[in-house]
Amino acid sequence: MFGDFFTKQMNELDFIKLVGRFFPSATTSGEGIGDDCAVIPISSGESLTVTTDMLVENVHFRLSTTSPRQLGHKSLAVNLSDIASMGARPIASFMSIARPSALTDKWYEEFIEGYHELSERYRVPLMGGDTTSADDSLAISVTLLGTTAPDHIKRRSAAEEGDAVMVCGTLGDSAAGLYALENGLEGFESLKKAHLEPSPLVEEGLWLGGETGVHAMTDISDGVAKDLRQICDCSGMGAEVELSELPLSQEMLELCDIHGLDPEKTALCGGEDFKLLFTVKESEAKMLCRRFKETFGYAPRRIGRMVSKAGIGWLKDGIGCDKEFNGYIHR
Amino acid sequence: MFGDFFTKQMNELDFIKLVGRFFPSATTSGEGIGDDCAVIPISSGESLTVTTDMLVENVHFRLSTTSPRQLGHKSLAVNLSDIASMGARPIASFMSIARPSALTDKWYEEFIEGYHELSERYRVPLMGGDTTSADDSLAISVTLLGTTAPDHIKRRSAAEEGDAVMVCGTLGDSAAGLYALENGLEGFESLKKAHLEPSPLVEEGLWLGGETGVHAMTDISDGVAKDLRQICDCSGMGAEVELSELPLSQEMLELCDIHGLDPEKTALCGGEDFKLLFTVKESEAKMLCRRFKETFGYAPRRIGRMVSKAGIGWLKDGIGCDKEFNGYIHR
Repeated sequence: MFGDFFTKQMNELDFIKLVGRFFPSATTSGEGIGDDCAVIPISSGESLTVTTDMLVENVHFRLSTTSPRQLGHKSLAVNLSDIASMGARPIASFMSIARPSALTDKWYEEFIEGYHELSERYRVPLMGGDTTSADDSLAISVTLLGTTAPDHIKRRSAAEEGDAVMVCGTLGDSAAGLYALENGLEGFESLKKAHLEPSPLVEEGLWLGGETGVHAMTDISDGVAKDLRQICDCSGMGAEVELSELPLSQEMLELCDIHGLDPEKTALCGGEDFKLLFTVKESEAKMLCRRFKETFGYAPRRIGRMVSKAGIGWLKDGIGCDKEFNGYIHR
Repeated sequence: MFGDFFTKQMNELDFIKLVGRFFPSATTSGEGIGDDCAVIPISSGESLTVTTDMLVENVHFRLSTTSPRQLGHKSLAVNLSDIASMGARPIASFMSIARPSALTDKWYEEFIEGYHELSERYRVPLMGGDTTSADDSLAISVTLLGTTAPDHIKRRSAAEEGDAVMVCGTLGDSAAGLYALENGLEGFESLKKAHLEPSPLVEEGLWLGGETGVHAMTDISDGVAKDLRQICDCSGMGAEVELSELPLSQEMLELCDIHGLDPEKTALCGGEDFKLLFTVKESEAKMLCRRFKETFGYAPRRIGRMVSKAGIGWLKDGIGCDKEFNGYIHR
C-alpha cells in the first residue's frame, strides 16, 4: 500500500492495516482484524468487551428506505450483535451523532424512540454521547460496553480441527430484503424487516458464551463466506461447508426464485445478517442443539466442520463442487 | 420544543433534552448535561469513566487550516481532556472514522501518526474502531475509557459554598488562535498551536483527582463563562469571578490589542481551551497551589469563589461590573 502513491482511495482493509502498523493492540486484542470486540480485563473475575460501529447516510442506509425508528433500532442492534458474538452481556451504550439540518425534530424523536425500544428490551442504558451539526450526511457512531467472565469469551481464533460449524438463524434474509427495497418490490415484509430492523441474538450469544464446548464464535455481518474464512484464518485451519444444509427462509427462497438470484450466493455473501456463527466440539454438538432448542425454541443448524486444510471447501450433498463464494465488500 | 413543529433544526441542547427524556441515565450519570464522562462502577475499588467526542469537517475543523497530524492529535486530545477533568486515568481508546475519497493514503498515514504520538505520550492504546467510506465530509468519533478510584471522581455538582474557583493554564489562547487562522494572520504560532494541537492536562487532572480538598472539576471546552455556570447550576449555587485575575498569555493579549478584540471576552467565551477549572476548599487552596507547583512547575490561578447566590457575578478589582459573558455556542 505504501509503495503505491497513485492509489487515491484507501479501502477498509488498507486502513485497518495502517492502523495495525501503529497500534498492534487494535488488531490483536482489538476488533480491527481480530475479534468483534476488544477485551479489557477489569478484575480477576470479569472482562470488559468494547465494540464501536459507525453508520453513514448513503453508505449504510438511505433515508428514503429506512424510517427514523428503524435506523435508531439498527444503530444499536449492530453493536449488540458484536457483544453477543463474544459471549458477553451488554451493559451501557454511548452515541455520537452528526445531524444535518434537513431533518425535523419529529424525525429525531422517532429515531431516539427506536433506539430506546431496543435499549429497554435488553436493559442497556444509553449513558452518554456527543451531538453536533453536520453540513451534509447524517452519521451515527455507537460504542457499546459489555462484561463477561474471562473464560466465557469466544474468540475467532479458538476453532479446533473436527469442530462442527453451526449457524443460529437463517441466512441471506437481510441481503434479500435490501434487494427488495432497492428494487421497490411489493411484499417480502419479513425480509425487509430483517434488513431494516435486525434482531441481534443477545440472549443466544450469552448462553453460548457459557458453553465450554463452543470454541470460536463471530456474528455474521459480512456473510458466512467471509466470516467463516475469518475463523479459519484466525484459527490456522480450514472448513468444509455443506451447501444443502444452509438454513434458508421460505420467503428468501421465493424472492430468489422469482427474481433469478442464486440463493446460495445470497445466503453466503450477503451482509448484515447479524446471526451467530460458531464452532463446537463435534461430540457435544447434538446435545448442545437439544439444550439450545429447549431454551430458545429453535435449534442451531450444523452446516459443516473445521478441517486441517486451509480455505473453505464447498460441498453439495457431500461432494466437493467448484463454486466460489466471497463475502460482502464494505465501502 | 415538542410544541414547536415548525422549528426545522434542533440545536444541541434540545437534542440532549430529547435524549434525556428517554434516557435519564444519559444526563444524570452520563456526560450529556451532567459531567464530562459517564461513570460505571466495575468493582469495589474502581470505576470506569467513559467519554466520546465527534469531530466533523467544516463544523469542528477545516482541512485547509489543520494538518492531518494535528487533526489526529486533536481527535484524541479532546477526549483525554474529558477523562482528566474527572480525575481519572485514560486506559484505552476506540476510533470510528468516515473517510471521504478526496484524501490520500499519505494524509491518513499522517493522521494516524498524530493520533499515535499522543497515545504513546500517555500510554493509551487504540484498541479498536470502525472505518467506512463517506460521500462528503470527514467525521471522526473517538471513545475513551478511563479508570479511577470512586472517591477520586470529581463531579461538576460537588462545589461547596466558599470554595475557591481555580484555573490550570491560560485562557482564550485557542479562540485567539482560531481567529488568527481564520483571518490568515502571520505569526501567533503558539496561539495557533493551542487551537490545532491542544495539550490536555492529563497528569494534572489525575493529581487533582487524588486531592480531597478539590470538590468540583470540569475541563474548559466551552469557555469559563459557560463551564463555570455548569458547575454553579449542578451544585445549586453561584460564583464571583475577579476579571483582573484571569490567567492570560502575553501573545493572546497582543493579538487582542492589535486586532481590537476584548481579551476578557476572548478568555471567558472562547471554546476549546481544554484547561481545567476546579473548586477547592478555601483553607486548602494556597497549600494545594504550592504542592501543585512543586509537581508541575506552574501554579493554578485563583479566579474567584463559590457563593450562595445563583448566577455568576463578574468583578473588576473587587467591584461588581455589569458585563455579561456567555460561553461558546456549539453548532
